[in-house]
Amino acid sequence: MSLDNEPTVEIGSSATELAHFLESQPLTERAAAWLALSQKERSDALPYLHDEIKVALLESTPIDEVVLLAENMEPSDVADVIDLVDVELAKEIIDSLSDAEKASVEASLDYNDDVVGRWLKRDVITLSANRSVAQVLRYIRVNGLASYTDQVFIVGHDKKYRGAVALASILEADEGTQLKELPFIDSTTVLNPAMPLSDLTMLFRRKHFISAPVVDESGTLLGRVTADDAISFMQDEADHQFMSMAGLDEEDDLFAPVFSSSKRRAVWLGINLLTAFLASFVIGQFEDVLQEVVALAVLMPVVASMGGIAGSQTLTIVIRGLALERISDSNIRPLLIKELGVAALNGCTWAIIVGLVAFWWFSNPMLGIVIGCSILINLVAAAFSGLLIPVILEKLDLDPALSGSVVLTTVTDIVGFLSFLGMGAWLLV
Amino acid sequence: MSLDNEPTVEIGSSATELAHFLESQPLTERAAAWLALSQKERSDALPYLHDEIKVALLESTPIDEVVLLAENMEPSDVADVIDLVDVELAKEIIDSLSDAEKASVEASLDYNDDVVGRWLKRDVITLSANRSVAQVLRYIRVNGLASYTDQVFIVGHDKKYRGAVALASILEADEGTQLKELPFIDSTTVLNPAMPLSDLTMLFRRKHFISAPVVDESGTLLGRVTADDAISFMQDEADHQFMSMAGLDEEDDLFAPVFSSSKRRAVWLGINLLTAFLASFVIGQFEDVLQEVVALAVLMPVVASMGGIAGSQTLTIVIRGLALERISDSNIRPLLIKELGVAALNGCTWAIIVGLVAFWWFSNPMLGIVIGCSILINLVAAAFSGLLIPVILEKLDLDPALSGSVVLTTVTDIVGFLSFLGMGAWLLV
Repeated sequence: MSLDNEPTVEIGSSATELAHFLESQPLTERAAAWLALSQKERSDALPYLHDEIKVALLESTPIDEVVLLAENMEPSDVADVIDLVDVELAKEIIDSLSDAEKASVEASLDYNDDVVGRWLKRDVITLSANRSVAQVLRYIRVNGLASYTDQVFIVGHDKKYRGAVALASILEADEGTQLKELPFIDSTTVLNPAMPLSDLTMLFRRKHFISAPVVDESGTLLGRVTADDAISFMQDEADHQFMSMAGLDEEDDLFAPVFSSSKRRAVWLGINLLTAFLASFVIGQFEDVLQEVVALAVLMPVVASMGGIAGSQTLTIVIRGLALERISDSNIRPLLIKELGVAALNGCTWAIIVGLVAFWWFSNPMLGIVIGCSILINLVAAAFSGLLIPVILEKLDLDPALSGSVVLTTVTDIVGFLSFLGMGAWLLV
Repeated sequence: MSLDNEPTVEIGSSATELAHFLESQPLTERAAAWLALSQKERSDALPYLHDEIKVALLESTPIDEVVLLAENMEPSDVADVIDLVDVELAKEIIDSLSDAEKASVEASLDYNDDVVGRWLKRDVITLSANRSVAQVLRYIRVNGLASYTDQVFIVGHDKKYRGAVALASILEADEGTQLKELPFIDSTTVLNPAMPLSDLTMLFRRKHFISAPVVDESGTLLGRVTADDAISFMQDEADHQFMSMAGLDEEDDLFAPVFSSSKRRAVWLGINLLTAFLASFVIGQFEDVLQEVVALAVLMPVVASMGGIAGSQTLTIVIRGLALERISDSNIRPLLIKELGVAALNGCTWAIIVGLVAFWWFSNPMLGIVIGCSILINLVAAAFSGLLIPVILEKLDLDPALSGSVVLTTVTDIVGFLSFLGMGAWLLV
C-alpha cells in the first residue's frame, strides 16, 4: 500500500478501476473526469460507484445522456439507477428500453436492493435433462459461455427448475452421456429471490460457490448469482460495519460536499453529546466533593477511559462474532464468563497499578484505594455491557455496530464517574 | 442473522461449516467436538481455522495423528501447519510425506505466509500452444477439471509460461482450432509469487478474476491463485482492520483462554492508560482553577468527548480510504480542506448549543463562551489529526487501524483539556 502512486485513468482501464479513479477524485476533478469519459466508459463504471456518488454524477448529467447510459447497462444496474433518480427521469429511462429489457428491469424492481432477487443475472444456460454432452458442447460453442459459468441448469417441459450439472462433470463425461446421467449439484445452494444479501454473503463464505441458481417459490428459475457480485456484497458489508463504529454508515463519498457531510456527522455528535452531558450531570452531583478533593477531578478521566477501552474490546469481539454468526444463544453464557474473567484479571492488575500511581502522585493512600476499586468495578461493568449491549441490540433488530459504542460509552462513563466520585465522597471527605 | 439457530454439526457439513462450528464452541466443548470428528473431517476443517485455534487443537492431538492429518491436506496447508507447530513435530510431518509432496510443501515454505507464493495451488492445466481444441477437451475428459478452473496455461518447450487461454474461448471455438489461434488473457493478471496478499486482494477487488497464474522471475509457471482463496484473504483483512481499531489484531478466538486473552488486552489498556495519565497531568496543571470554578470539572468531559468522536469519524474515513488506496498524495490536500470545513461547520453548531446549555446550567455566560470556543478548537484539531495521523503512520509503515485511535485520543484529550481549562483560568478566575 503505497501513497505515492498518483491515481490516473489508463487507457483500457477496467470498469472497477474507472470507478475507483472517480471515487478518489475531489468533487470538481471528479465532475471533469466524468465528462471526459466516453458514453461506454460511463455506463461501465456507473454500477461500481457508491450510491451517493452515483446520484451526484447522474444529477450532473443531461437527461438524454442518462437515458443512453441506461441502454448499455445490465437490467439489475438499470433498476438500481431507477431507484436512485427522481420519478420523471425514471419514467423516461424505462420508456427508452426495449420490451425485453423493460421486463427484466421491472422484474428486478420487484425486489428491494437488499435481497438476492434484485441482483440476479439472467444469462443462464438452461437445457433439458436428455440433452447429450455433445449437444451441450455444441450449444456452448454457438451461444458462448458467460463468465462465472461453472454449471448449467436443467429445466423440465413445464419450464420448472430441476437441478444443476457442473460444467466440470460435463467436460469430464463422454460425448454421448445425457445430462440426467451426470451427478446433480447439491440442491442446498439453490437460492430464493427473497434471500437477504446478508444471508447470501454468509452462505458464500461457507460454500465458496462460483455461481448459484435463483429459483422462486413456484419452482421457476429466475437467474443466477455469481461470485463477483457476492464479493462486492461482502466488501460492502465489511465497509459498512467498519464505518458504522464511528456512526458513518451513510458516508460513502470521501469528498462528499462539506454541508451534507457535516449534517450527517452532526447527528452522531449530537447523540454522543447527550451521553457526555449525562456524564457531566453525574459529575455535577459531586460538586462539593470535587471542590474539596480536587485530585478526584484530575483523575476521573482515567477511570472512564479505562472502562471505555476495555468495554470496546469486548464490544468489538461480540459485534464480529454476531456478524459471522459465531455467537448464538447457546454460547453467550460461556462467553460472558470468559469476558468477565478477563475483566476481573485485567481489572485487578490495573487497579493495583493505577492505585499505586495515584497514591504516589497525591500522597494519599485512600485515593489509591478508591481509584483502584472503581477501575475494577468499571472494567467488570464494561465486560458485562460490552457483551450484552450488542446481543440485545441484535435481538431488537438494531445494528450493534452502529449504536453499540454509544450505549457502551454511556454505561462506562456513568459507572466510572459514579463509582469513583461516590466512593471518593464516602471515603475521602 | 438470527441468534436462535443453535450451531450443530450436520452430517456431510462442508469443511468451512465444520471449522465455523468448532470456532463457535467454548474450549472444552471444542476439544470434545474435535475428538469426535473423523480423521478426514479434521484434515478438511483444519485449514479453515484461525491460527490461534489451529495451534491449540494441534497441541491437543497426539503426534502420530497430526502426521496423518497432514497427509490428507494440500501442500500450502501443510506448510501452514509446519509453520505453527514446534520444530520436532514439523520434522516428523515432513518426513512422513512422499517425495513429491515434500517438494511442494518445501516450495510453499520458501515464502512467508503473507505473500502469494505461500498459498498457490499447483493443480494447473499446462498445454503447448499447438494443441487443438479437440485435444484440450480430451485432456480435460481424462484428467478432470479442478474447481475454479476458468483458463488453461500455455507453456513453451522450455517449460516457460507463455500465456493463458480462457476456458470459454476454448469451448466457443471449433474443434480443429489450435490454442495459439485463440485470444490470450490479459497478461496483467499474471502474479509474482512475492506479491503481498494485500496487493492480491486489491487486484482481486478490481479485476474480479476466478483464477490467476503465478509465474516466478525466471518465467516458470508455479501454480495459480483462485477466487476462493482471495476471498478468504479479503475476509481476514477486513476482520483484522475491524479488530485492530480496538487493539485486538491478534484476538482470533472468541473463547481464547482467560489468561492469554487478558495478557494481550492488558497491553492495549496499558498504552491507553498512558494517554489517560497524560490527560490527567494536563488537568493537574489547573488544580487551583478547578477548585475555584468547579463547573469546569463538571463540563470538561464534554469537550474531550466531542473532540474524540469527531476525530474518530475523520480517522475512520481516512483509514478506510488508505486501505482501499483511495487516498494518495495527490488528494490529501483537498481532503484536508473538506474535513476542516466539516469540522468548522460542526464546531460552530455544537459550540453554540453546548455554550447555551452551559450558560443555562451554571448561569454563567462567560463559561458558555469558554466551552464553546474550546469545542470549536478541539473539533478543528480533531479533523487535522484524524487525517494526518493515519497518513503519517502509513508512511512510517505502521498500521493506522491499530495505533491511529490511541494517538488521536491523546491529541483530542490534551487539546480539549488544555484549551478549556486554559481559557477558564484566563477568563473565569
